[in-house]
Amino acid sequence: MLINGPADVAGAALDGLTRTADGVSRLAGSTATAIRSDVAEARAAGLVAVVSGGGAGHDPAHAGYVGSGMLTAAVTGALFTPPPPDAVLDAIRAAAAPAGALLVVPNRPADRLSFALAAEMARADGIDVVVVPVGDDVSRTGEGRRGLAGTVLVQKVAGAAAAGGRPLAQVAALARRAASAVGTMGVALGPCTATVAGVPLSGSELDSPLELGSHQGLGFAPGEVEWGPGASGEPGVGRGPIGSAYQVAARLIAAIVEDRGIVPGDRVALLVNGLGASSPTELSIMAEGAVRALRSWGVTPVRVWAGDFLTTLDMAGVSLSLLPVDDELVAALDAPTTAPAWPHTTAPAEPGLVKAPPGISTAPGELGLDHPVRLVLEAVAEALISVRDELTALDREAGDGDLGVSLALGAAAVLAECPAYPGADGPAAVLRAAADTVRRTVAGVSGPLYAILLLRAAAALPDSPGPRDWAAALRAGLDGVREAAGAEPGDRTMIDALAPAAATFADRLDAGHPWPEALNAAVDAATTGADATVDLEPRLGRAGYLGVRVLGYPDPGAQAVAIWLRAAATALHP
Amino acid sequence: MLINGPADVAGAALDGLTRTADGVSRLAGSTATAIRSDVAEARAAGLVAVVSGGGAGHDPAHAGYVGSGMLTAAVTGALFTPPPPDAVLDAIRAAAAPAGALLVVPNRPADRLSFALAAEMARADGIDVVVVPVGDDVSRTGEGRRGLAGTVLVQKVAGAAAAGGRPLAQVAALARRAASAVGTMGVALGPCTATVAGVPLSGSELDSPLELGSHQGLGFAPGEVEWGPGASGEPGVGRGPIGSAYQVAARLIAAIVEDRGIVPGDRVALLVNGLGASSPTELSIMAEGAVRALRSWGVTPVRVWAGDFLTTLDMAGVSLSLLPVDDELVAALDAPTTAPAWPHTTAPAEPGLVKAPPGISTAPGELGLDHPVRLVLEAVAEALISVRDELTALDREAGDGDLGVSLALGAAAVLAECPAYPGADGPAAVLRAAADTVRRTVAGVSGPLYAILLLRAAAALPDSPGPRDWAAALRAGLDGVREAAGAEPGDRTMIDALAPAAATFADRLDAGHPWPEALNAAVDAATTGADATVDLEPRLGRAGYLGVRVLGYPDPGAQAVAIWLRAAATALHP
Repeated sequence: MLINGPADVAGAALDGLTRTADGVSRLAGSTATAIRSDVAEARAAGLVAVVSGGGAGHDPAHAGYVGSGMLTAAVTGALFTPPPPDAVLDAIRAAAAPAGALLVVPNRPADRLSFALAAEMARADGIDVVVVPVGDDVSRTGEGRRGLAGTVLVQKVAGAAAAGGRPLAQVAALARRAASAVGTMGVALGPCTATVAGVPLSGSELDSPLELGSHQGLGFAPGEVEWGPGASGEPGVGRGPIGSAYQVAARLIAAIVEDRGIVPGDRVALLVNGLGASSPTELSIMAEGAVRALRSWGVTPVRVWAGDFLTTLDMAGVSLSLLPVDDELVAALDAPTTAPAWPHTTAPAEPGLVKAPPGISTAPGELGLDHPVRLVLEAVAEALISVRDELTALDREAGDGDLGVSLALGAAAVLAECPAYPGADGPAAVLRAAADTVRRTVAGVSGPLYAILLLRAAAALPDSPGPRDWAAALRAGLDGVREAAGAEPGDRTMIDALAPAAATFADRLDAGHPWPEALNAAVDAATTGADATVDLEPRLGRAGYLGVRVLGYPDPGAQAVAIWLRAAATALHP
Repeated sequence: MLINGPADVAGAALDGLTRTADGVSRLAGSTATAIRSDVAEARAAGLVAVVSGGGAGHDPAHAGYVGSGMLTAAVTGALFTPPPPDAVLDAIRAAAAPAGALLVVPNRPADRLSFALAAEMARADGIDVVVVPVGDDVSRTGEGRRGLAGTVLVQKVAGAAAAGGRPLAQVAALARRAASAVGTMGVALGPCTATVAGVPLSGSELDSPLELGSHQGLGFAPGEVEWGPGASGEPGVGRGPIGSAYQVAARLIAAIVEDRGIVPGDRVALLVNGLGASSPTELSIMAEGAVRALRSWGVTPVRVWAGDFLTTLDMAGVSLSLLPVDDELVAALDAPTTAPAWPHTTAPAEPGLVKAPPGISTAPGELGLDHPVRLVLEAVAEALISVRDELTALDREAGDGDLGVSLALGAAAVLAECPAYPGADGPAAVLRAAADTVRRTVAGVSGPLYAILLLRAAAALPDSPGPRDWAAALRAGLDGVREAAGAEPGDRTMIDALAPAAATFADRLDAGHPWPEALNAAVDAATTGADATVDLEPRLGRAGYLGVRVLGYPDPGAQAVAIWLRAAATALHP
């Protein structure tokens, strides 16, 4: 993983946090204590300080929650190791005003001990300190309940109460109420990293050698998960197969609801927490699954957050936390905070649905049997159908083999649908209708490119186009293809036939040639261009992946252009 | 990984997003199109719509950027597959007012094609549309530059311009300026998941079988990384060993700075993007490394963000994006937005440092040779030193083997330091000084617990304590230990000796016994309590991990209490 070394985790992570977050400073002389930049103002205002912390590797916990309305200071120890009591004492002394300090401590024997000793030392210094341990882990009982992501909700509630100017006893009471109500359970999809910059973690870098089982990746079979792991990867309550995201969410919700005695009609805040390596995609899906599961219990999630809140280094997995709430707790959760890692979203009561305005529907028209555009479309379609197998064979050597079939399918659809194209609305409307057919029926990149060609050409056509208008339309279509494909002549694409054809047609007309002659010259230019692709190295698209093995074959897309252009010319001037 | 199946990714992730984010709705009838809930108001205000999107698996891109001041709508396709043109067209039609729409498209052939066709269809419907592709990938050249996390910065800039009421041409011009300036390069530490709920991804679920190399985890050796991967895990520019986080950051910054022609004195915005499985800890460390690297180039990062912005499912790794900025671009990046995934932090010019207020320093005192507290401390210390090997042997069977040495080290320190304890300030001050010695010198849980015991006892002592005051102090110390350890009598800890001793001492004094008799009874109670631990199953701490194999041995911590208590009693009343 991307760290500089096991010894450097907490300090370097805090360095980075202070780069991104205005309002979070480092406590001078500390290894890794984050403190509100405006702590002097907070002290002067007589606000109770809220201090928390723990081992490193749980970012954004806890430094990311430093800010007005949440933590006054956060003390971080070495990787998965609690901060020493002296570091906690320093933070208390820097943060606490005469109003005193509340310590929110994720329950874990070593962390609890360190904060308890710091509290005693602070009291000996005359500072009023209350410790509120958080043991939200529903996979354990009693004092063995570990502090998990629910700790963050307690920090938020305590911070809001402190920011509201309440005295220490009231801040502590609200925090204790949240701490005793919140429940969390997670699932680990694998261990957290066994190596740090390639060096395996040794026992001396962790606070308990018996927690190494997970760290060292022992025993995770493929598709197996661990239910109820601790915040530092300690063992949970058992292993088993994974199931779908919604099944996982349902199981976790059930465990928390039953442990916490949550009953139908209760309102809860839901925190979906990534353990480090689970992606935002997964967290969003788990949020939806958790909401569905809560609904099935008759419980209403009034606030929902998803993100990385309290991680286990780079462990894959998710935890869910439920805090049953009343109006006072909702207000505390909603209260403003500048803490960089607290989300600035509010869950909607019910997700919104926006309806699109009505579209422009085109009524079916009619395209006469002898309409010149219909004659051209039919000739082009028949030509493409007739070369289906030939193009397929070529595309198997110099493409991905589907061009012949794709174009033939589109051609058949054009033959079927063109009688209903709106001939009365002019040739541009007919080309737009053909674009619609091609877009719906031609797979791969050919469908979109031909649809763009037709739409751009249509946009360039006046109501009664002459030969020069058609030349301009062909040029416009070519430009659309170039832009959309990001390709130029020489890239071994259909452009290598289209571009010389468009240029030749326009040039010959400009030079005063009659249009049938100009068109035939354009067809010849397309054929020459297509044949010349045999020597071109591919740069884009499927052929680009195939590389030099296509050399010696012409580009199938360019060949197809030459074929249908010749068919079109023949139809117009047999 | 935690999904319901490969086909369900985009829709389920959007469902979850709309649970957490007020202001983001789903477009009715769409598979996974997110749209501003207040889009009708935005249309009525005549604002240009900004629409973006791409395949699923890149969350929070792009739905997480929907909100006022950023995207009007985001269209998501299947996993790593661009949304079909019709879905993009629907989004444009729902989002675009007469002012038109800007499409910000991460450059990738299939995505670009889909958005280009949708743009043509929208134009045919009379909607003014401009497409701005973003190819920020500095590991490629020309049209092959892929759209990576820099796309998000372009979305932010475009969204700010649109929210400011600027016409489409100006919004497009600013977006194009950002798109042509931004550069990104990343590093993948491994492939993204090869299995989805245990089912391997097959080629048909991805848009190119040749992108499968990374997905299937081919060829990543331990400690090896891939430099410059694409946003869907496509191959980068080469593989090699990982190095430290700061080294990785320096290499990526160098590549971007050189490609983008960034020169000393330039100001840049820096985006540190997690690819999915990299933890917040790593992202913070990489942010610090990137800032240091920029400084070494003489470049000033004026804005720094770290987080998951545009991910590759659950790939481990990070990308860095640099956008050279002027005041106009900084203002656009700083402009407010309600988009749930855009961070609400502002980078500080220079990280802050807060100094703690001066502490209370205790001047060294003097503790007379015959001061009763000194006699007790010395007797206790000598007793603990004398049983060092005995306790060590016992702790090897029923603990982790360090208790004898830890206590002996602390005892030696007390012997050395106690002559300078402040005897003139009363016995409480002496106990506090002893707590300080113990805290600094005793390792493991014993140090903090004994320090807490001494501090709590000190806090309970009046200036001239009598026997009942000492009994109260012992009780207070016991309570401190219970709270800090979260342990009760019967948990096989030092409390099993301390608790009966404290109770017996107080009871005998209450019953009118002389203090030496009461104290001796307390010592006996401690010994009885310690001996009785042989039958207790461990529940907490180190012994808790050892389980029933400790049965038959007394708890070493309880034994130590009985030993020093007897030494203290003997010193006071030989």
